[in-house]
Amino acid sequence: MEFEVWIKKKAEKVEEYLSASIPEEDNPQRVIYEAMNYSLMSGGKRLRPVLMMGAYEIFGGNDDDVLPFACAMEMIHTYSLIHDDLPAMDNDDYRRGRLSNHKKFGEATGILAGDGLLNKAFETGLEAALKGRLDLRRCVKALSAIASSSGADGMIGGQIVDMYGHEKVNSLEDLKYMYSLKTGAIIKSSVAAGAILGGADEEQQKCLELFAEKIGIAFQIEDDILDVTSTREKLGKAIGSDIANDKVTYLTFKSIEQSMKDVEQFTDEALKSLEIFGDKAKHLRELALYLTRRDH
Amino acid sequence: MEFEVWIKKKAEKVEEYLSASIPEEDNPQRVIYEAMNYSLMSGGKRLRPVLMMGAYEIFGGNDDDVLPFACAMEMIHTYSLIHDDLPAMDNDDYRRGRLSNHKKFGEATGILAGDGLLNKAFETGLEAALKGRLDLRRCVKALSAIASSSGADGMIGGQIVDMYGHEKVNSLEDLKYMYSLKTGAIIKSSVAAGAILGGADEEQQKCLELFAEKIGIAFQIEDDILDVTSTREKLGKAIGSDIANDKVTYLTFKSIEQSMKDVEQFTDEALKSLEIFGDKAKHLRELALYLTRRDH
Repeated sequence: MEFEVWIKKKAEKVEEYLSASIPEEDNPQRVIYEAMNYSLMSGGKRLRPVLMMGAYEIFGGNDDDVLPFACAMEMIHTYSLIHDDLPAMDNDDYRRGRLSNHKKFGEATGILAGDGLLNKAFETGLEAALKGRLDLRRCVKALSAIASSSGADGMIGGQIVDMYGHEKVNSLEDLKYMYSLKTGAIIKSSVAAGAILGGADEEQQKCLELFAEKIGIAFQIEDDILDVTSTREKLGKAIGSDIANDKVTYLTFKSIEQSMKDVEQFTDEALKSLEIFGDKAKHLRELALYLTRRDH
Repeated sequence: MEFEVWIKKKAEKVEEYLSASIPEEDNPQRVIYEAMNYSLMSGGKRLRPVLMMGAYEIFGGNDDDVLPFACAMEMIHTYSLIHDDLPAMDNDDYRRGRLSNHKKFGEATGILAGDGLLNKAFETGLEAALKGRLDLRRCVKALSAIASSSGADGMIGGQIVDMYGHEKVNSLEDLKYMYSLKTGAIIKSSVAAGAILGGADEEQQKCLELFAEKIGIAFQIEDDILDVTSTREKLGKAIGSDIANDKVTYLTFKSIEQSMKDVEQFTDEALKSLEIFGDKAKHLRELALYLTRRDH
């Protein structure tokens, strides 16, 4: 119960910050702000920001100081969804039960809204670095970790590998590589940035990054399982879409039962990595369980 | 003659830095590096980086320190060209005499190559801020100015206004607003970033930003003129394309003769703004003339 209050409060803070971050000024380019907000405020779970805040909390800092960086991460996540949905990519007309950005605003505006959100993430982070209360060097290190994770050596690279899936993903190792880039990299940097901003020492930083790697892969496998075992109502999108799209997933290589066991094992390993923090990592621990034991 | 050597040397430094900035590692996402390099290394004039270096030079700093920031700007400029060329935007099959990025690599990879370059600009700038020799706060201020200029309140906003041109651009004032965002913003921030990194005081910063604003508009009007008066050979692309595309340009509102006079006037005003720097702004002054008196 206490955790539910905790996560709700964090997500509300994120919601509030995001909702104020792109004012819809009455100028000739107004539609770009509307398009950016349309996707940014469409009710995601804000998991990446909450992960950053959970890692940061270990070091005792104030939520408000980390919030701009956490929200920058959500902007990056949102832009990636907008571009993923484009006709040239996954060609999805719907996202979270609403029209996808390009269906609502047209393709050109959709592309630019994605560009605008990626750019806005760095605008937000850099401004917070200059005007916020955190040590400047820590802020730049955190932003640098975020930037590396969302680029061609991270999320964008993973998207490329996913797109060419049938040529590039022929084994479980290939798949894990793709996942580590496509979804793993920004999950890892969310936690890493929280740790850097909080002032983690080298050992603490290493433990938190290992935690994030394990959680990232567990989360992704869980996603693959849910695509098969969930219901449309619970998932908020069509189930069985991976099979329908002939996608290579974890279940291509392992049974559902084994996949579930693997989720548990990666989660256990993640939790083990938090042991050095004792009770201070309480919420991050519960968050890991929450992320990987979603409703089957 | 001396200026020609100067600009050639600066552009060569940029070329060299850019060519080493995205190694084409032999991993499954390799095509993204290739696609990013394809456009990045396609022989632009590197005007924005050279502008930044010209402004920075006034304050006596070493070229190598500003170079990563100058090249970050070129990455942003290049990404904007890739996305501009997409079918949903201007739908251009050619750019600088070669296939446009999406024609060469496919639309999905083209979108991601643009995303990758925007992201890489911040990776590059943040890493240089951490590892370079310049004052950290100056670096963050410069990156913040760059980020603001390329976002929804800058270049991306201008792109939106341009796209909806016939609704949004009904007067010379509307057009100047659009230009100030679409091309003016990152020209201004190129100069502004050079000044910030060089350590300009408030007065110097103001003068250089005013210079950049004037040069930006003069440059854009010159572009509109060249589209009518140049030859295909000199311009490296089809002439008369603005008229063919029924585009609103400076010449929609003013005669060629008046437009040429306006270019001169804005250039004069720009040069006036450099007076406080005396001989130190020698190259920046010549650069302004070079930019606005291109071959008719």
